[in-house]
Order: sequence, then C-alpha cells, then structure tokens
Amino acid sequence: MWKGEFMNNFYFQLPTKVYFGKGQIVHLGEEIKKYSDNVLLVYGGGSIKRTGLYDTIKDLCVQNDIKVYELPGVEPNPRIGTVRKGAALCKEHGIGAVLAVGGGSVIDCAKVVAAATKYDGDAWDLVLDSSLIKEALPIFTVLTIAATGSEMDRGAVISNPETNDKLAMFSSLFYPKVSILDPEYTYSVPKGQTAAGVADIMSHAFEKYFTRVKGAYLQDRIGEAILQTCIHYGPIAYHEPENYEARANLMWAASQAIDGVTWRGNEVQSTAHPIEHQLSAYYDITHGVGLAILTPVWMEYILNDETLYKFVEYGVNVWRICPDKDDYEIAKEAIAKTKEFFKSIDIPSTLREVGIGEEHLEIMAKKGSHNLQNAFYPLDEQDVLQILKNAL
Amino acid sequence: MWKGEFMNNFYFQLPTKVYFGKGQIVHLGEEIKKYSDNVLLVYGGGSIKRTGLYDTIKDLCVQNDIKVYELPGVEPNPRIGTVRKGAALCKEHGIGAVLAVGGGSVIDCAKVVAAATKYDGDAWDLVLDSSLIKEALPIFTVLTIAATGSEMDRGAVISNPETNDKLAMFSSLFYPKVSILDPEYTYSVPKGQTAAGVADIMSHAFEKYFTRVKGAYLQDRIGEAILQTCIHYGPIAYHEPENYEARANLMWAASQAIDGVTWRGNEVQSTAHPIEHQLSAYYDITHGVGLAILTPVWMEYILNDETLYKFVEYGVNVWRICPDKDDYEIAKEAIAKTKEFFKSIDIPSTLREVGIGEEHLEIMAKKGSHNLQNAFYPLDEQDVLQILKNAL
Repeated sequence: MWKGEFMNNFYFQLPTKVYFGKGQIVHLGEEIKKYSDNVLLVYGGGSIKRTGLYDTIKDLCVQNDIKVYELPGVEPNPRIGTVRKGAALCKEHGIGAVLAVGGGSVIDCAKVVAAATKYDGDAWDLVLDSSLIKEALPIFTVLTIAATGSEMDRGAVISNPETNDKLAMFSSLFYPKVSILDPEYTYSVPKGQTAAGVADIMSHAFEKYFTRVKGAYLQDRIGEAILQTCIHYGPIAYHEPENYEARANLMWAASQAIDGVTWRGNEVQSTAHPIEHQLSAYYDITHGVGLAILTPVWMEYILNDETLYKFVEYGVNVWRICPDKDDYEIAKEAIAKTKEFFKSIDIPSTLREVGIGEEHLEIMAKKGSHNLQNAFYPLDEQDVLQILKNAL
Repeated sequence: MWKGEFMNNFYFQLPTKVYFGKGQIVHLGEEIKKYSDNVLLVYGGGSIKRTGLYDTIKDLCVQNDIKVYELPGVEPNPRIGTVRKGAALCKEHGIGAVLAVGGGSVIDCAKVVAAATKYDGDAWDLVLDSSLIKEALPIFTVLTIAATGSEMDRGAVISNPETNDKLAMFSSLFYPKVSILDPEYTYSVPKGQTAAGVADIMSHAFEKYFTRVKGAYLQDRIGEAILQTCIHYGPIAYHEPENYEARANLMWAASQAIDGVTWRGNEVQSTAHPIEHQLSAYYDITHGVGLAILTPVWMEYILNDETLYKFVEYGVNVWRICPDKDDYEIAKEAIAKTKEFFKSIDIPSTLREVGIGEEHLEIMAKKGSHNLQNAFYPLDEQDVLQILKNAL
C-alpha cells in the first residue's frame, strides 16, 4: 500500500580515489602534494602515535615537502567546538588541505573543518543548513576502523553538547579526494570498537534494505552481501584481531554499505540512525552500540502483516532459514538471530547496560521521531518512545 | 595450491556521473555544454531514429546551442575503420566531445574515437598499446542496451576484420564523463539481443567470481547478487520487454558487473571473454551468444577436485541447490542449470547453431589461449581447442 513504485531514479558518482590494501599509504604524500604544500592532520586520542602510523605519515609529508599542522583530540562523537578550532587553524595558517587519520568521527570532523574554513560565519550554521557549503578544502583520509563509511561518502555527523544535538549533514564536497584503506591499520582496534563497527556497517545496510521502494532487487541482494560479510567476519575479527581476510572484508564492506553504492535507487528515510543519534547526543555512548541495541527492538516493534515479507526475505537470504517454515516463524527467528549475533560479539543489548535510564526518553523520542513518517514503517513520537522503553 | 593469498590490493575510483531512471536525458545537454560547444554523435544501425531518441537528443543539443556532427553505422563488433572515420571527423571540424548513443559497441567505438582524435598516428596503434593514450576527448553516453558495462568502465573492444583481431583495451581516460541510464530506452531491444545482453552481464560476473584470489568474500557475494538479478529478471525482460522493474535491474546490474565495482580485489585473467573474442573476430557473431555457448562448456571442462569448492559455492548461493547433496552433484546441477537458463531465453547452445564449424578452431585456440595460464583454472592452447570442440 505504502510501497514505492519501482526503483527510484538516482544520481551516482564515486569521485573518491581509494587505495586499498597493505602498504598503500605510500601514495598519500604525492596525492596531497597535488593539492597543497601544507595540511591539517586531524586525529583522535593518540592511538595512531602508539601504532607508529603518526610517524609514518609525518615522514611521508617531510619527504614530499608538505608542512603539517595538527588538530588532535577529536572526540568519539565529534563536537562542533573541535570543528571551530580546526577551521581557525586553517584560516590562520592558510592551510590548503585536511588529512583525517582515524575512524568516522575523525573523518566527519575533518570534513566540516574543510567546509568551515571556506565559510565566513560560524561552523554550526553549516551543520544546520549544508546548502551554505559552497566550497571546501580537499579532504584526505587514512582509515583506522571499519564502521561509518565516511571515507567514501558525502556525509558527516556533528554533535553540539550545549544543545544535546547530534546532526547528520551531506555535501558532495565532502567526498574525500583520496582514501587510504589498509586493513592492517585496523588490527589494533579494541574488541569493543571492532564489534560496534560491525553493528554500524550492518545498520547502514538495514537502513535501506528495509525500504518502501519496490523492485530495487539488485540493491537488496547487495545489501544481503554486506550483511552476510559482517555476520561471517565480525566474530573472526573480534576473536582474531590480526586476521587480514576478516579485516579486509569488513573494511571494504563498510565503505560500500552506505551512500555511494548501496544507497542508490532504494532511498528511504533511515530509522535506527536518527533515533540512535539522540542516545549519543544525550549520553555520549558509542554509536554502533546504540544501533545494535535499537535494531532488534525496532524490528520486533514493526513486524506485522504489512512488513512481514521483508523479514522473510531477510531471514531466508541472510540467515539461510529454511523457506518452508511459517512466515512469522522465519521473521521471528531472523530477529532473534540478529539479537544473538550482537550478543555473540559482546555488545550490550539493553539501554540500561550503557547507563541510559528513563530520564530523557520523552525528549529523545520527540527529537528522534522527526521525519520518521517517511521511514520504511512510519513511526511517530509515541512509537519511538515505546521502542526506547522496550530497549531499556 | 594455486589460489592467491588474501584479497588483492586495488585502486578504485568511479568518476563517471550516472543519471539513472526515467527521463534523465534532460541532464545531457547541460552536461555536454560544460565541456564543448559541439559534439560527435556516434550511433549504430539507426534504431534510435525509429524510437525517437535521435530527435530528442538533437533537440536537447539545439536548446543548449551545441553543434552536432554524426558518425552513424557503428557495427555490432565495432571496427577500426569506423574509429578512423570518427577521429578524422573530429580532427577536421575541431570537435570537442563525443556522445555515444547505443550499446557497448557504439560506446567502445566512441571511446577509441575520443582517444584517436588526440593521437597523431593510426588509431590501431592505440588498440595494440593503450599506454600510447595520453589524452582523449570527453565521452558521454546514452545507453540503449544492458550488456557490456562500457557506460561505467574504462574498457573498449575493437575489431580489425583485415587481421581477424578483436582486442580489448583499457584506459582511465575511457571512463565516460556522464552516462544517462534510462531503462525505458531498452524497451525496444529485440528479444535475442536482450537475452545476449543478460549472458554478457553474467559472464562479467563469472570472470571474477571464478578467481584464484582467496578471501574476496564480499566481492563473491556481490557477484552472486548480480547473477541472481540476471537469473530473476532475464526471463521477465525477455517475455515482457516493457517491464520497467526488470529493465532497471538488468541495466544497473550491467553497469556494476564489470571493472568498477565488481572487479576489485579479486582480479584474475578472464577466460570466456578472450576465447569468445576469437569467435566474434572470425565469424562476427553476437558477443553475448558466444559467451553463453562457451561458459557451460568451459565449466564442465574445468570441474575437478581443485575447482569443485567454487562450483559448490555457485550452486548453493546462486541456484539455491540444497547444500546437503554431494558436492559433485551440486556442481553438475549448477552447470546444468546454467545451460538450461540460457536455453530458456532461447540462446543457441552450440557453435554449429551460429554457423561455426571446425575450419578455424586451431587458429582461434592459438589466439584465444594467450595469457590463460593466469586464469582461474590455467588453460593452454590444447585445452582451449578441446573446449571449442566440445562447444561444437
């Protein structure tokens, strides 16, 4: 009834140059040098110093005669204050390129720094209205965790702790010029972050797999390919952090799971992401953990005669549940397996486990339900409140 | 034993802008105009005049004040003579862009015209050694048949009837700037060409699905997504030419099946394509038909204890054969189903049916086996000869 008619029209381009594999960092210096003689190196808590990646990059910049400025300390949910600091540095020193070394948070921060440098007003304006972005510094990334897909997309998510806002924004100027994807750089990702990354990749696939669009069959099958890859390799990477095959597949799955390849022709308003952004905004929890808690609860909440077909497809094609079973049996088994999977890699399964109680549920439901009337299964504020309560 | 170790390192970029869906042609004029005030319109036998697409494009060019020159009559296996003619026109009139309206043959021809215009010597030099390509006119495409993927890749295949050569060539300058992918333009593709196009898409997936590379799991699953899409929609498009859903899925599958998305990290020498190119070169048959004839015969020829695992994967994941069966039983059933599938859309299944006898088998085996020691299953001249004999 409410399903879209046919595959959507879409626009597709993936301008980011990706160098994938062991040792591909060698291309970084020469690529930056095409655009600038100096660069702002953006990174997080300093793990890149422990792993030696920081030194490798500094050496490459020296070899290519590129002057390096630094913006360290980007938060796991990157804050607008850090963006402002980065943009101020770029303006002060006339910096001509931004290099993010880290995961999605670092990359997202770098993207908005790149735009804010070319904007006269306050950086938060751009988060609220990305149409104000007319220009941006060229962005380069060296990825160190497989999760958000920010290394090959046009999105960024920025938090404002003063207002408890965490907002997603999009600009075609946010596609990195070059991304270095070396799976070995993810060997040192802690187990909990590895698991949360897997949940994030899967959630990106779910957000468009559960679409109103009818007949985006190829996209559905590719979504299943990504989900199967996460289910197969998530536990391997969790238990054997230096398994190259697992890290490589998860890394490439992360980059493909969003925006560029998988989110075309099947567009629909995401559900778990906007709700989870409220959790991270109010409690600063790990994004992937919030997604893993919400996803099975949301699935249970929306399972009904109208949505059943999609859960059957999911159960049979992803979990390989026998298609001879009763449809509701397949759907419920698929949801149970999703929940078990996240548990198997030790992700918390309730909000209380991550320190979230009833205190902000109403306001989070209000802010998180904006636009969800356009989701796969339309939700209003009361629905979201119930989902949050069910997730406690 | 001869399997590669891990996913290959790779370089990935998809610079082509794709406008996908109904009515997307409206973007064509403004996109060409960014690059040039005139254009060489390259097309085939004139079906675009019957469908009205020719007039639509001329109107768009007039509206955007773009002068149109024409290169009609590109052959189904495009010939070097036609390329030379196109390049001469571009040089003579100072043409600044090339617009291919048609299928893979027309696009391939346009690509080499674009390069030959910027080259002082003979166009065939470029086919023999694509490293001579230093510059090319910007290339635009309006796709009218789902098959080769040339609309979003960096390849071209050109024939030389004087020498019976049909050669593939690659250049990053061959990525079209813009491709218009409107599934409705494929409504008028004759049944036989629709079927041959499906076989071509599937063959592109097979060429890298059967790889020596170990652990390119995501790529394998995406290959299966493309194969399933072809198996699901091939017969629908064949029987209901104006089924939008089928045409849309096949069109997008075609663009994804090659080079850009699916052929990364799992690279291996193709097998069916180089052998088939000999058939087309000597007998001018339809490429997709040649591939459909050769593929099951090749599969039967290389099925053994070493390759069995891959056929089992193919049978279980693509054809959904029960995994409880004996491995050889699964493999043989998968090959039989492949053969039946091509038959079900009325593609000839023997070389004799398309007029090929024993007269040139030796020379075709000699020319087609070049490099096949690096294929998924290494083949020499004698192997290829036997495959061709088995295909009679």
